Amino acid sequence: MAKTAESSVSLTGRHLLGIADLTPGEIALVLDTADAMKEIGGRAIKKVPALRGRTVINLFFEPSTRTRMSFEIAEKRLSADTLNFAAASSSLSKGETLIDTARNLEAMAPDIIVVRHASSGAAHLLSRVCRSRIVNAGDGMHEHPTQALLDAFTIRERKGRLEGLKVAIVGDLAHSRVLRSNLLLLTKMGADVTACGPATLLPPGLAEAGARVTTSLDEAVEGADVVMMLRVQHERMQGLFLPSVREYFTLFGLTEARLRRAKDDVIVMHPGPMNRGVEIDSAVADGPWSVILDQVANGVAVRMAVLYLMAGDSHEMAS
Amino acid sequence: MAKTAESSVSLTGRHLLGIADLTPGEIALVLDTADAMKEIGGRAIKKVPALRGRTVINLFFEPSTRTRMSFEIAEKRLSADTLNFAAASSSLSKGETLIDTARNLEAMAPDIIVVRHASSGAAHLLSRVCRSRIVNAGDGMHEHPTQALLDAFTIRERKGRLEGLKVAIVGDLAHSRVLRSNLLLLTKMGADVTACGPATLLPPGLAEAGARVTTSLDEAVEGADVVMMLRVQHERMQGLFLPSVREYFTLFGLTEARLRRAKDDVIVMHPGPMNRGVEIDSAVADGPWSVILDQVANGVAVRMAVLYLMAGDSHEMAS
Amino acid sequence: MAKTAESSVSLTGRHLLGIADLTPGEIALVLDTADAMKEIGGRAIKKVPALRGRTVINLFFEPSTRTRMSFEIAEKRLSADTLNFAAASSSLSKGETLIDTARNLEAMAPDIIVVRHASSGAAHLLSRVCRSRIVNAGDGMHEHPTQALLDAFTIRERKGRLEGLKVAIVGDLAHSRVLRSNLLLLTKMGADVTACGPATLLPPGLAEAGARVTTSLDEAVEGADVVMMLRVQHERMQGLFLPSVREYFTLFGLTEARLRRAKDDVIVMHPGPMNRGVEIDSAVADGPWSVILDQVANGVAVRMAVLYLMAGDSHEMAS
Repeated sequence: MAKTAESSVSLTGRHLLGIADLTPGEIALVLDTADAMKEIGGRAIKKVPALRGRTVINLFFEPSTRTRMSFEIAEKRLSADTLNFAAASSSLSKGETLIDTARNLEAMAPDIIVVRHASSGAAHLLSRVCRSRIVNAGDGMHEHPTQALLDAFTIRERKGRLEGLKVAIVGDLAHSRVLRSNLLLLTKMGADVTACGPATLLPPGLAEAGARVTTSLDEAVEGADVVMMLRVQHERMQGLFLPSVREYFTLFGLTEARLRRAKDDVIVMHPGPMNRGVEIDSAVADGPWSVILDQVANGVAVRMAVLYLMAGDSHEMAS
Repeated sequence: MAKTAESSVSLTGRHLLGIADLTPGEIALVLDTADAMKEIGGRAIKKVPALRGRTVINLFFEPSTRTRMSFEIAEKRLSADTLNFAAASSSLSKGETLIDTARNLEAMAPDIIVVRHASSGAAHLLSRVCRSRIVNAGDGMHEHPTQALLDAFTIRERKGRLEGLKVAIVGDLAHSRVLRSNLLLLTKMGADVTACGPATLLPPGLAEAGARVTTSLDEAVEGADVVMMLRVQHERMQGLFLPSVREYFTLFGLTEARLRRAKDDVIVMHPGPMNRGVEIDSAVADGPWSVILDQVANGVAVRMAVLYLMAGDSHEMAS
Repeated sequence: MAKTAESSVSLTGRHLLGIADLTPGEIALVLDTADAMKEIGGRAIKKVPALRGRTVINLFFEPSTRTRMSFEIAEKRLSADTLNFAAASSSLSKGETLIDTARNLEAMAPDIIVVRHASSGAAHLLSRVCRSRIVNAGDGMHEHPTQALLDAFTIRERKGRLEGLKVAIVGDLAHSRVLRSNLLLLTKMGADVTACGPATLLPPGLAEAGARVTTSLDEAVEGADVVMMLRVQHERMQGLFLPSVREYFTLFGLTEARLRRAKDDVIVMHPGPMNRGVEIDSAVADGPWSVILDQVANGVAVRMAVLYLMAGDSHEMAS
């Protein structure tokens, strides 16, 4: 992966709907830009005027702590004017459709709308009816592109590269937009991905997407450079897909003992929020392998990079 | 309506509680100022320092998407510091009265409080106990003055004037603060208003307020320059006032066929959120007559104008 | 109490967890700094760049009107970037622990986290796991230090001093963090405190903490310079601790008649929100003795002072 972005590679004026739309060069451009943004976050005055006078609406139809806060901090560090719209307090309770809500918001001339929605495809839908730039902050079981970008940034920060790395992604593979976006990104960038989860939660198409698939955690972790644990939804634990919390942890919970099969310098990732004692043991989550809080920290830098690149106008970037 | 505001006309340091308090000259001043504000919204850097260092509290006791967002965007484009207060997350759940809440907020020295409340008269009440300037963002079934101002701005933008226009306002006339504020404004500015709705929802006093009243939609639309549809509250559909959604649409829903009775260059308005298929057909809402999204866009400019004029200090207006 | 802060007295880079951690000199430093901050709140442009580019997260796990708004206004007047996190809309509903939430938020590199939580000790817990500076905005029945500081500021503003004043604190002594923080502060600063409440709500340790204790309101008010009423929680009125609202008001409600036993220039305080007719009569709450709204106004100035002193860098204070 070349560290210098080619001049023809650009996100200016585009949407960010999914990793599926990005070329390896565009992914590299985001990661390189995030390097510069991370430096800003380390200053005493963590603010640049790049998006001054621009309006960003955070349109969240699902509850979220870290993703909404991460975007909002990123927007404020770029000096954008930010507005939060949460579904509960909205006129959606008056029966307005998603499209009418979006058209109305965008009539107020925001530059960027960051959207999270429980329905796969919601971000694409908005991109077709809005002139504003759309950033997908998670749509149903489809994509969560900034999560995959911050994961890639974190891996690259620790390993110096993505190409050729052995990455195990473990958990509820059938319902995870994090898996989907990561699998797309990591295969584009030349990593070697193993997907591991219960047989009842194996979606079709993983092999075609470039993943090796296994139901054995030991096999997935064997020789891994990176182990990425997915969150298990408690509501899927009621016997329909998964037998019980105890059995899930026994078969798919990441423990120190299991991690010994990985490379010595393995890193452990989790998109959060974690279920300690379900998909991950606390000794692992808080141990020396864990880069889980780095992921959160890097999320702000990566989102700053995405917003900055979409808004263009790099000449305004002077701090 | 004179386009140049007389020097004695001013909103500086005043409340905006209702259209009832405004002279035609003051209404014209808001609309003329909104012209300038709309231009700011079209810039790449959509921000002027007019209200820098001023504090505006958005005090919303009713849920609202577009009105709260519209005010907040307007405030931010004027560089005000904005704070949102929603009733649900407040100490009102601890039994504090509206007046105590308002007195406490205003002890924090906000310059302007924008208030929406389910009780008619709430904004007036606050204006009597607070030194802060109060903007009524909708109080019960009483007034919604910025809605009427943005409606007037939108009409004037399309028709070049208000005087002499034939405006039909259609829907639940008995419970609508939008009707009330629009009727006051339009008659003050010399427009010719016809109010149309079900006989069960005709309030007394419309004729005295200067409106022609009819229960026939065809009659109301006949020769109209503007057709303004009001939102029907679903909770009024349960047989008490209105028979059923289907019958309401049959009698009072605006369709293309019905619109043919209006002038060729008629415009169709709706304050939103729309009930498609109840008070308005989608073909009309999304058709060439519709200025519904213009209303939303103009709402930001009109609210910027109101806040700017109330805060005064026009010498700070330099961008 | 010396009005000039010694050079060795500083809050730079520290937490504010409770009054227990502050020396009399540090308390005086906050109050003196708040004098300067109050002046800023009286300007037309109520804003200084002291915390520009700093990020402050308001992490509220309990509903609050005035405290959250007061902090947010204080932060904005100091030009900080502020983010609000309310428990209801958070991933806490997904079962994440307080510590994981805090660690995640602080990975986003906020400079200061203002926290309110129903559990005593929550702020201390966060201070041990976070690098960010923590401000306790109320933790269970433990402390509410900025409330005590704004109360002290208000008393000093009216009386010119704290030392030697006779202060009565009246109400539910067993469950009040406001009592606790005020008792700590006032005794440190040399005031003479009488705590008064129902016998069922007298916690152990008040005498050891330096308070005179009585169950007679008349005795407590006798000769007082300051009468500070505490809020009674309605949920404690169900017969468990308190017989009824009527009986509570009869025994412990502050009325004009009772207030005549105090000094002629007595001031009456309440942290709000008030239960009119329960712990305080409206004639007292709105009467000439009342400094209740001054407390609210001073809250912004005191919180500005705390945030400013914690963030340090006084050279940035130029307006």
